[in-house]
Amino acid sequence: MSARDGGRPRNAKPMSSGTIGSWADGADVIVIGFGVAGASAAVEAAVHGADVLMLERTSGWGGAAALAGGFIYMGGGTPLQKACGFEDTPEDMHAFLTAAMGAGADAAKLAIFAERSVEHFDWLTSCGVPFRAAFYDRPGWEPSGDEGLMYSGGENAYPFAELVRPAPRGHVPQMRNKRTGERGGGYMLMEPLAETVASLGVRIDYDTRFERLVAESDGRVSGVVVTSYGEELVVRARRSVVLAGGGFTFNPDMVARHVPVLTTRAGSATDAHDGQCIRAAQALGADVTHMHACEAAVHTDPALMIRGIVVDGRGTRVINEDTYPGRIGQELVSHHSSQAFIVADEQAVDEAAADRNPSSAFAPPQPAWVSDDVAELEEAAGIPAGALAATLELYNRHAERGADPVHHKATQWVRPLRAPYGLFDLRGATSGFPLGGLRTDIDGAVLDVNNEAIPGLRAAGRTTSGIAAGGYASGCSLAEGSFFGRRAGRAAAHDPPLGASRSSLG
Amino acid sequence: MSARDGGRPRNAKPMSSGTIGSWADGADVIVIGFGVAGASAAVEAAVHGADVLMLERTSGWGGAAALAGGFIYMGGGTPLQKACGFEDTPEDMHAFLTAAMGAGADAAKLAIFAERSVEHFDWLTSCGVPFRAAFYDRPGWEPSGDEGLMYSGGENAYPFAELVRPAPRGHVPQMRNKRTGERGGGYMLMEPLAETVASLGVRIDYDTRFERLVAESDGRVSGVVVTSYGEELVVRARRSVVLAGGGFTFNPDMVARHVPVLTTRAGSATDAHDGQCIRAAQALGADVTHMHACEAAVHTDPALMIRGIVVDGRGTRVINEDTYPGRIGQELVSHHSSQAFIVADEQAVDEAAADRNPSSAFAPPQPAWVSDDVAELEEAAGIPAGALAATLELYNRHAERGADPVHHKATQWVRPLRAPYGLFDLRGATSGFPLGGLRTDIDGAVLDVNNEAIPGLRAAGRTTSGIAAGGYASGCSLAEGSFFGRRAGRAAAHDPPLGASRSSLG
Repeated sequence: MSARDGGRPRNAKPMSSGTIGSWADGADVIVIGFGVAGASAAVEAAVHGADVLMLERTSGWGGAAALAGGFIYMGGGTPLQKACGFEDTPEDMHAFLTAAMGAGADAAKLAIFAERSVEHFDWLTSCGVPFRAAFYDRPGWEPSGDEGLMYSGGENAYPFAELVRPAPRGHVPQMRNKRTGERGGGYMLMEPLAETVASLGVRIDYDTRFERLVAESDGRVSGVVVTSYGEELVVRARRSVVLAGGGFTFNPDMVARHVPVLTTRAGSATDAHDGQCIRAAQALGADVTHMHACEAAVHTDPALMIRGIVVDGRGTRVINEDTYPGRIGQELVSHHSSQAFIVADEQAVDEAAADRNPSSAFAPPQPAWVSDDVAELEEAAGIPAGALAATLELYNRHAERGADPVHHKATQWVRPLRAPYGLFDLRGATSGFPLGGLRTDIDGAVLDVNNEAIPGLRAAGRTTSGIAAGGYASGCSLAEGSFFGRRAGRAAAHDPPLGASRSSLG
Repeated sequence: MSARDGGRPRNAKPMSSGTIGSWADGADVIVIGFGVAGASAAVEAAVHGADVLMLERTSGWGGAAALAGGFIYMGGGTPLQKACGFEDTPEDMHAFLTAAMGAGADAAKLAIFAERSVEHFDWLTSCGVPFRAAFYDRPGWEPSGDEGLMYSGGENAYPFAELVRPAPRGHVPQMRNKRTGERGGGYMLMEPLAETVASLGVRIDYDTRFERLVAESDGRVSGVVVTSYGEELVVRARRSVVLAGGGFTFNPDMVARHVPVLTTRAGSATDAHDGQCIRAAQALGADVTHMHACEAAVHTDPALMIRGIVVDGRGTRVINEDTYPGRIGQELVSHHSSQAFIVADEQAVDEAAADRNPSSAFAPPQPAWVSDDVAELEEAAGIPAGALAATLELYNRHAERGADPVHHKATQWVRPLRAPYGLFDLRGATSGFPLGGLRTDIDGAVLDVNNEAIPGLRAAGRTTSGIAAGGYASGCSLAEGSFFGRRAGRAAAHDPPLGASRSSLG
């Protein structure tokens, strides 16, 4: 289902409760979406005594989370970090996030997310999420096997390694029969969460698509309008609705207006991420924030990138290639029109092949062109004559002494590249998802332009703008989805019931 | 006045009309803001028979427009273009705008803006805006004298010159006693418009600050809440409110969340641009769009930039220096962290001095460092060793034959630079303003998330997202403010009065 039919956007405006004849069976807390944010919200709302109903548009639990590699960004000294021999503190984690999540990132969210990360790890394990205490130390998008810990945000690369003591914080649930993109660590996060949801007696209606909110005359949210098997139903939320139905990756109109660099490059989400949760809240006066921010993947094996250099369409090098590959993708998408090539030599190719992650989603990279003559490569690739040669000459000159003063790649990965050179074509080989969404407080309250909570409405996951406002680290989405999902669920359970005084809101 | 007092945002939520005891004297059409958009809206609303009241927070007319250099982006074959010997067509203008205004720009606005640009020129002259038929052909931010026409968008530079037949479209009202930043072409636009407003019997309340909208129970806008000399007043709009009170340049919270690259770099607006018009509409469910887009100036004389090269903090050249200097500013702000230097030689400095615009707001540029030794310059400027040398060597090598295959600066400006080199420090020397805002249709109707008009509400000028969604040309703001302001005013005059059937809305 697309967000538009015949060019008209889907109706996202609230239904007035006064016009409603009959309600379907309701609940204290209605959770929209059974991804990681919804599951976490449902668990905590139920634990805190609420009668919870989850409404999920597909026929099963999982959302985008179950398809993800499964990184959960946690730190500050988790048992897994300790077991793998890494020291970390909430202060270091906070300092890293502050440096890495982008200008204007939500300070209150960053603070509590770092401060309570160890507790969040404990909560996930208490729900049955398994982690194996093994550290994966090679370049890649994710561990090749069932290792539970990996650098996933460039913590050990420039500039962050100079600012904060590095610690790996990408925690991956232990998986069996991994199939990247189909069944990875994200599945092994969602399976125990789904079992926890079920064990708590949470009711779940599948094949039930969220359409819009129901509002009282004073603006308080009191339910949702959904469609199920072609029928429109109105469901009462006695305390709160928690919107956790994903972001707007697959709403082309919103992408064009907010993140035009992702036009035709949407990825890493399900088509449930159609922006409807965001639009429905906006229609009630909710504010949106950081709508331009995005994370992006570059579709290649990092093991080769890190041993070569990544240049843009003008032959200019773009970033230190040893950083988190998603940061390379962000840089390419946001600042280089997704025009990129890897330049590598035979030694780099051989080493990358030896280092190759056998579970990688990407085929072994093949050079588009190979030549001893850089001018020939420039002409073949449409790079301005002499530009790639100048970049290579400068890189190699410094690399002779193990230095990279231009982009500060760590010495261990710096080595002069020798002819023949292979040029690997990454033009357009990027895709990503927006990071912006509803402006929420740390308990998932959806904020209006006055920074005031919209009564009866909370949100979590990619429906909201979270900790990342331009930067990113792998694992942020699952971590903040679960972390702030939990908080939203707990708060929703304590929201005043319909008809109660509103003096405690806000 | 800032948009926040003591950390709390100003109240932007609508006042319910049911709670209002007494109304101040109202009008058919209430126009918020007496800048170019508000003035144009007021004129057309009055011409179309409406009783119009303008509410302006300062003590006089003008807004940001009266402080601007005065470019009005028009074309398609205006009398001024013809008198200066340039051929242009609406199709060429449309093709240029489509290429230059950024991905995701509003197609309907681009189309009508180009199609009716000549008519808009005639309207402005009919209001008494004077233009002198003289073309200014030198590099600069604006004409040095009272010349009426200049390239202002990079039409005659790469890549646009290869795509569309170039025509200058920056029309500047003829001015006397020009003082850049105080009294320029923008003043000579606003003075006749203000006289036209007065001649039509439009009422104007100065020192009256817009606070928020008044809404009926069904969401229709029926008035505004304003403060004047400390008193809160509620003013009825019988047909429509036209929000034309500017953008959010001086709302630091909104800038941090939507255009973080402009944090601490806000400029080219008045402090009335505090986002209140946008927020007030959002509170009623209005959608926002392209909030991340911005225009930026780089604070230096283009006459030197065009003769040298502009490099970023890594010594990498950033753009063809002969393009519209605001495009250089956008590139620096958006993609190079506002880190830039001009590299020039003595000949470039001498030629730029001879070409200098005597009315320029910028002092003649002084080199921060001069040396025959590029390595010395690199070290002084913190540019990676060898990086600037490589850039210069590549530029000079191609320049020997008048070519610039890297950035395609036009041959007439390409010449090898010779030692001693001067390095001019432009780090941080940028400022700009956001281009995003309310989503409106071509008649200024403020659209909600369903793309439906909010009844009784229109908007124009920087309160809205206009034709630019990332790109820009000097003159867009005054042109679209007046062009779409007119349309909003005319439509507002015909909006159904309060209490009338709403069947004709939408």
